[in-house]
Amino acid sequence: VGELFQLFRDGRPRTKAELAEVTGLARSTISLRTDALVGLGLLRRAGEAISSGGRPPSMLVFDPSARVVIGCDLGAEHGRVVLADLGARILAMSESALEIASGPRSVLGWVQSTALSLLGEQGIPVERVAGIGIGLPGPVEHATGRPIKPPLMPGWDGFDVVRYFEGVFPAPVLVDNDVNLLALGERAGALPAVSDLVFVKVSTGVGAGIISGGVLQRGAQGAAGDIGHVIPPRSAGTERPADDERDLEALSSGPAVAEVLRAEGLVDDATTGELVRLLVAGNRRAAALTRQAGREIGAVLSTVVSVLNPSVIVVGGSIARAGEDLLAGIREVVYRRSVPLATQRLQILPSIGGEFAGALGAATMIIERVLSESSVDESAAAVGAREVAVDRQPAAVGR
Amino acid sequence: VGELFQLFRDGRPRTKAELAEVTGLARSTISLRTDALVGLGLLRRAGEAISSGGRPPSMLVFDPSARVVIGCDLGAEHGRVVLADLGARILAMSESALEIASGPRSVLGWVQSTALSLLGEQGIPVERVAGIGIGLPGPVEHATGRPIKPPLMPGWDGFDVVRYFEGVFPAPVLVDNDVNLLALGERAGALPAVSDLVFVKVSTGVGAGIISGGVLQRGAQGAAGDIGHVIPPRSAGTERPADDERDLEALSSGPAVAEVLRAEGLVDDATTGELVRLLVAGNRRAAALTRQAGREIGAVLSTVVSVLNPSVIVVGGSIARAGEDLLAGIREVVYRRSVPLATQRLQILPSIGGEFAGALGAATMIIERVLSESSVDESAAAVGAREVAVDRQPAAVGR
Repeated sequence: VGELFQLFRDGRPRTKAELAEVTGLARSTISLRTDALVGLGLLRRAGEAISSGGRPPSMLVFDPSARVVIGCDLGAEHGRVVLADLGARILAMSESALEIASGPRSVLGWVQSTALSLLGEQGIPVERVAGIGIGLPGPVEHATGRPIKPPLMPGWDGFDVVRYFEGVFPAPVLVDNDVNLLALGERAGALPAVSDLVFVKVSTGVGAGIISGGVLQRGAQGAAGDIGHVIPPRSAGTERPADDERDLEALSSGPAVAEVLRAEGLVDDATTGELVRLLVAGNRRAAALTRQAGREIGAVLSTVVSVLNPSVIVVGGSIARAGEDLLAGIREVVYRRSVPLATQRLQILPSIGGEFAGALGAATMIIERVLSESSVDESAAAVGAREVAVDRQPAAVGR
Repeated sequence: VGELFQLFRDGRPRTKAELAEVTGLARSTISLRTDALVGLGLLRRAGEAISSGGRPPSMLVFDPSARVVIGCDLGAEHGRVVLADLGARILAMSESALEIASGPRSVLGWVQSTALSLLGEQGIPVERVAGIGIGLPGPVEHATGRPIKPPLMPGWDGFDVVRYFEGVFPAPVLVDNDVNLLALGERAGALPAVSDLVFVKVSTGVGAGIISGGVLQRGAQGAAGDIGHVIPPRSAGTERPADDERDLEALSSGPAVAEVLRAEGLVDDATTGELVRLLVAGNRRAAALTRQAGREIGAVLSTVVSVLNPSVIVVGGSIARAGEDLLAGIREVVYRRSVPLATQRLQILPSIGGEFAGALGAATMIIERVLSESSVDESAAAVGAREVAVDRQPAAVGR
């Protein structure tokens, strides 16, 4: 069933006769499977094909508006939710300032009520939700959806996010870290042809999402992309003492740079927001420190480039959006230090995704899952089992 | 056709009725496709199933001995060739000392004549060769099979290895760098369940083969895994000066370590062979320098671990085989420096592949290609086109 459905994902309508010819499946098999897909709402009948005589054969087509998904991006101090159709078209969105540190029940409660009110506004019943994708600002064991010792998220360690939503939405839930979802969203939105991409987010933390060979790489425990805890090699531009063993996040995150500005009396609080404010205002000291932070990030990325040979590095997060300085520092060191073959055609670009890129990435993740071959097969089997149960009941009673 | 064939790769015999039931394909389709697979030699008829009355239905089974592949590993100073069946069982092997620097025509000429004599000894006609896999000691553009500015291989830059074999063997040729093939071979032989593996080879050069998400990662230009040209961060155990910008290969390769031994009068030539000789003899200075080389390698691998979160790092090459020192240095730094979540379940193991591991990896690479769905489809289409051409000829003559 799932395999047959994959043919329809290009959006072109097809007749059953055409499907039988392309797949070699028996006509009876085609009818059974397309009926199941129509039952799931994934296919709908669309007009009629030109007949070669006799009753005109009906056409079937993928219906991306049949179901919706919820994509959610949770940051240290914000939450964003989008409602999208199966074609990743955003139907509605909402955002709010919130503290991830207030704990999972409070934060996920906001996600739930926000998703329900977006559905209500659009007049979409909960049953049409095909899945929920959630991005969290910390390490997540993707297979189980549980955060693992996330430093910015007290109270979340090991929390069962999937189970939390089970009673509310009868649909699959997938959880991942925010940077992985930004990588997925950036590729879906701007770089669909790129198979080897590294997305770097520089904000309150520093992390990377890695797409290699066309696939998001999570690693054995879901910890892949954690460049923030790498100790960068000293690069020529650096004046750090030789015994400085601070990691990349301690050197280059928003709060780390802002702390230098605070110590120099340029800002009151060592926050990413304050740094961004100075950068936007054109402050030279903030620009120079940000460029130096970019060099440290570039020193780590030059190893990533030699190891993975990506064709594009995308730099996102509020500091990159506030000016050219971060990107300039990264480019300076990556192009100087990496292996020539690996940098020859390497592009280092700013992210074009806006503030809802993470939520859209979360929606993309769950759409890919829901529309995958095996997932469609499972849903069809579940619907089939229900129908069989209903069919059998009267017969059993009749005996 | 290819898809149907994938069902048989587990080695279990099946009847056509069973295939129709499992796939939903029409009986006529099943017959057409299995006939094509029998024609390709990939399936053979095997005994008879227990009949439920009437003529007993015949069973079909995958026949790994129907075709052979050639796997070849070329190093700086050696060549090794294996002849294997489609189940990666080695039928015959051969090795020779040769200089890769003597150029592609001379070296590939040796490969060709060696392969032909192995085939001759086994009484296998050239037509039964299903493919040739070749590993080279330098960067290779995998899509075209051309070496790209390989430092140890004068005369090879851009050489069309695939085309060289075209006239001799009517079969596909795939080329990759030796470390990628060691990674494939190690996984196939020892770690089939591992999806995230980094294979590090330390010998005349230092390089890595990376398997992430179950797939060998080559990167955008085939340069992935080039850890030898990364400048390692200084680690606590190091006493290098702060302005030392030597790369990993310059610090930790066999010749680099042997050069220190040569300067101290302990060996005459700065070669990997001399270092290995001292290590095997239990020389303490050689052991200490090798351990320090392991620490430098570990410093780079700790970034690789944070970025990719592998579950296993395998260390191969002659220096690792000569004793525990290299592995001890690597382990010391990787476990100290990497992110805890990424090292919690990380294993760092010596390679168990022997001297023919690279050639077997090359055979594995070509077997995977030859038996892949799309490749079987192509072969079937080619055979089908030939048969159609033959069928039509008499008819045309008859008109």
